[in-house]
Amino acid sequence: MMDFELLEKLVAVRGTSGDEISIKEFLIDYITSHQSNWKQQPEIIQGEEFQDAIILVFGQPKTAIFAHIDTIGFMTGYDKNLIKIGGPRIIDGIQLVGSDSQGEIETELLVIEEEDGSSHINYVYDREIDRGTPLSFKPDFRLTDTHVQSPYMDNRLGVWVALQVAKELENGIIVFSTYEEHGGGSVGFLGKYIYEKYNVRQALISDITWVTDGVHHGKGVAISMRDSGIPRRKYLNRIIDIAKTSSVPFQLEVESAGGSDGTMLQKTDLPFDWCFIGAPEDNVHSPDEKVALSDIQSMIDLYQLLMKKL
Amino acid sequence: MMDFELLEKLVAVRGTSGDEISIKEFLIDYITSHQSNWKQQPEIIQGEEFQDAIILVFGQPKTAIFAHIDTIGFMTGYDKNLIKIGGPRIIDGIQLVGSDSQGEIETELLVIEEEDGSSHINYVYDREIDRGTPLSFKPDFRLTDTHVQSPYMDNRLGVWVALQVAKELENGIIVFSTYEEHGGGSVGFLGKYIYEKYNVRQALISDITWVTDGVHHGKGVAISMRDSGIPRRKYLNRIIDIAKTSSVPFQLEVESAGGSDGTMLQKTDLPFDWCFIGAPEDNVHSPDEKVALSDIQSMIDLYQLLMKKL
Amino acid sequence: MMDFELLEKLVAVRGTSGDEISIKEFLIDYITSHQSNWKQQPEIIQGEEFQDAIILVFGQPKTAIFAHIDTIGFMTGYDKNLIKIGGPRIIDGIQLVGSDSQGEIETELLVIEEEDGSSHINYVYDREIDRGTPLSFKPDFRLTDTHVQSPYMDNRLGVWVALQVAKELENGIIVFSTYEEHGGGSVGFLGKYIYEKYNVRQALISDITWVTDGVHHGKGVAISMRDSGIPRRKYLNRIIDIAKTSSVPFQLEVESAGGSDGTMLQKTDLPFDWCFIGAPEDNVHSPDEKVALSDIQSMIDLYQLLMKKL
Repeated sequence: MMDFELLEKLVAVRGTSGDEISIKEFLIDYITSHQSNWKQQPEIIQGEEFQDAIILVFGQPKTAIFAHIDTIGFMTGYDKNLIKIGGPRIIDGIQLVGSDSQGEIETELLVIEEEDGSSHINYVYDREIDRGTPLSFKPDFRLTDTHVQSPYMDNRLGVWVALQVAKELENGIIVFSTYEEHGGGSVGFLGKYIYEKYNVRQALISDITWVTDGVHHGKGVAISMRDSGIPRRKYLNRIIDIAKTSSVPFQLEVESAGGSDGTMLQKTDLPFDWCFIGAPEDNVHSPDEKVALSDIQSMIDLYQLLMKKL
Repeated sequence: MMDFELLEKLVAVRGTSGDEISIKEFLIDYITSHQSNWKQQPEIIQGEEFQDAIILVFGQPKTAIFAHIDTIGFMTGYDKNLIKIGGPRIIDGIQLVGSDSQGEIETELLVIEEEDGSSHINYVYDREIDRGTPLSFKPDFRLTDTHVQSPYMDNRLGVWVALQVAKELENGIIVFSTYEEHGGGSVGFLGKYIYEKYNVRQALISDITWVTDGVHHGKGVAISMRDSGIPRRKYLNRIIDIAKTSSVPFQLEVESAGGSDGTMLQKTDLPFDWCFIGAPEDNVHSPDEKVALSDIQSMIDLYQLLMKKL
Repeated sequence: MMDFELLEKLVAVRGTSGDEISIKEFLIDYITSHQSNWKQQPEIIQGEEFQDAIILVFGQPKTAIFAHIDTIGFMTGYDKNLIKIGGPRIIDGIQLVGSDSQGEIETELLVIEEEDGSSHINYVYDREIDRGTPLSFKPDFRLTDTHVQSPYMDNRLGVWVALQVAKELENGIIVFSTYEEHGGGSVGFLGKYIYEKYNVRQALISDITWVTDGVHHGKGVAISMRDSGIPRRKYLNRIIDIAKTSSVPFQLEVESAGGSDGTMLQKTDLPFDWCFIGAPEDNVHSPDEKVALSDIQSMIDLYQLLMKKL
């Protein structure tokens, strides 16, 4: 029985890149109030030196799961203009929520096409919203017998999977990272900390990928052989070998574009191996991200296995 | 009474990205000959391990000002071709200066339009200049009662502001960084040094920004809520709160593009918080960069305040 | 007498970015079986913490040669699609080799032009190759009295030059790096290791550059004054001064584009100086990369000199 109530709550907590304090506090609350039921009590590492990120250390870790807690969204500019945070899809009429000095805001995205063919995006509201206010997709969580559909499956679902794995985890690290959707910037110091303190340099990226010509709903969790970045073959092969000898359904993904905390780890001054492993979704970066429940189960199962065997 | 003589001198010292040795030496001379009049004597950190950058450490630092000492410009290629250093605006007839093995050079930029619509840039000179010679905008410092206009307000003005703040600074760090205009590369090791040695991870970026639809001449120093990068909200809010409780005029900037030493710090393996704070200018990256004197005063005032209160 | 047999062997060992294990093992075998003939026995640093890279430390090092051991190539996607690794030139009919679970593969690249003007690339093969299989240019080594022509002069020739220099090297470091062709990622941890352990921060990038309007076959090794990145002038001038006082033929290169392990070192949190020094080639990133033998000799000579004098 999957705890989708938690997932729905996670989706509702706002946290665009750079503004992850609320989701961080939600997670700290959840962890401290639930960890007594977990098999192993993790050390919780947080504080200003970790910005709004969290590291959980279980037992004698060899491998770290990275799940980013930030989301895409928008920031208000001048004259009701909107500026993207990360790469949200621009669809006229999308419902957005946020808050500024005058209170809670519920607004709507308007695409304005200019005569020269260019376009820009505004918000529709009866007053000007404070400059620099972050706006998020309005929560809209839809669960059926086979699928879950909601804004921010990317990556509240990756965070939720990490929390499911946490329950039974004996040895390993879970990193809740920030800024993934907008240029990164936290996996450098987070990776440095766990490498220097625990000598951990094996990373699994718990994030959501795309349904494509080669990766389909319901065919299992995707192990990404590459996106814009290329994981080290030797590490990748160990992961695929473990998956093959299991009964967990999985799909091999080969993409030319896209990135993750893995490609960010690659750019650090650290010898991290990394591999992106996640369920695929439709309607990427829109309020309608849709994932098959069976793929979510495969994702949990594969993470549990890999955290033991890698 | 502002010491604009010093600013005029700073503008005249050449120092395109990668070739900052002259401006570095000018600054070391200035600092060592003036610091006796400063409230607090800083430790001066420099040397080959810091390339052409300088770190000044005052008292017990909590926050660091980063001011980049390099400028945009051009480098001579083959056949009188010019290659950009950073992103200078290309305007036919711009006066450029430099020197090579045969002596001082004063030349002019020529835009050549090809029949296929493409264009490239040459220099006009009676001989071929040594390959790889850096060329800078010819100094042309114009001061009125209300504005200063000159090449390289970006960022000799940011450097100059840091030097004004230095006079009264009791606790803090000033970093004179290099390579900012051309891909960065020094804030990584500079940030690492001050983080590891002084545990300083609060950064203020003393640099010059753009006059836009939302940011105007004479309306005060701009606090940037974002450009291509997004500063951490929690840190940004502390800065804005301090500014609000002061009498210093300031403007909130929200841009979709542009970067600084702040966006570079974000990409390091270090948990730096950063915020760009600077006066706005017209005619960005041209020889005619223009800034309002009142905004410069606000910039000094806000830095003095923040270095105490952050 | 140059040992081109070794170069031919190096070219034949597969090793696209991320999959450098075979070329790493080849190099370890070569080094351990030949180092007894070298003037100075290096310390060989390798292991999982160094991924598939190798560091050789000779005597009291001051300068490090970086030679990347990975190559460009392709990876199989879905439906006989090919995805680039690095930036190979796309030429219809290029012969590619690799291996998957069913054995050795020899195939051919097919460019498919769509009616809308777009194009994509496939492989021609009687079965589907395993997803994510790396494919390389088929070895085709052509040696004449004046030139060598082959796939992967970039950078098996740079590796080979480093091995020639190793024979006589008394003090210095040779780094065999990975991932250079596809976004980098190893010079960060490799540079960190040699900087922190040996205080070495002078780098020379042993790699192959382009024949252009300003750099020609047979005119000597190219010292690059810039590509997309700009080496620090002070360091560059020391190198050029040493070259000028020698009898080694060399050419000064000034490019606006391109990058190397040098530009990657620039992005680390380390104060590395770097300079790209390499023979020029025609037919860059194709199976027909062609280099003049005399330029190769100049490259060896200049590296030998610089490793002593820098």
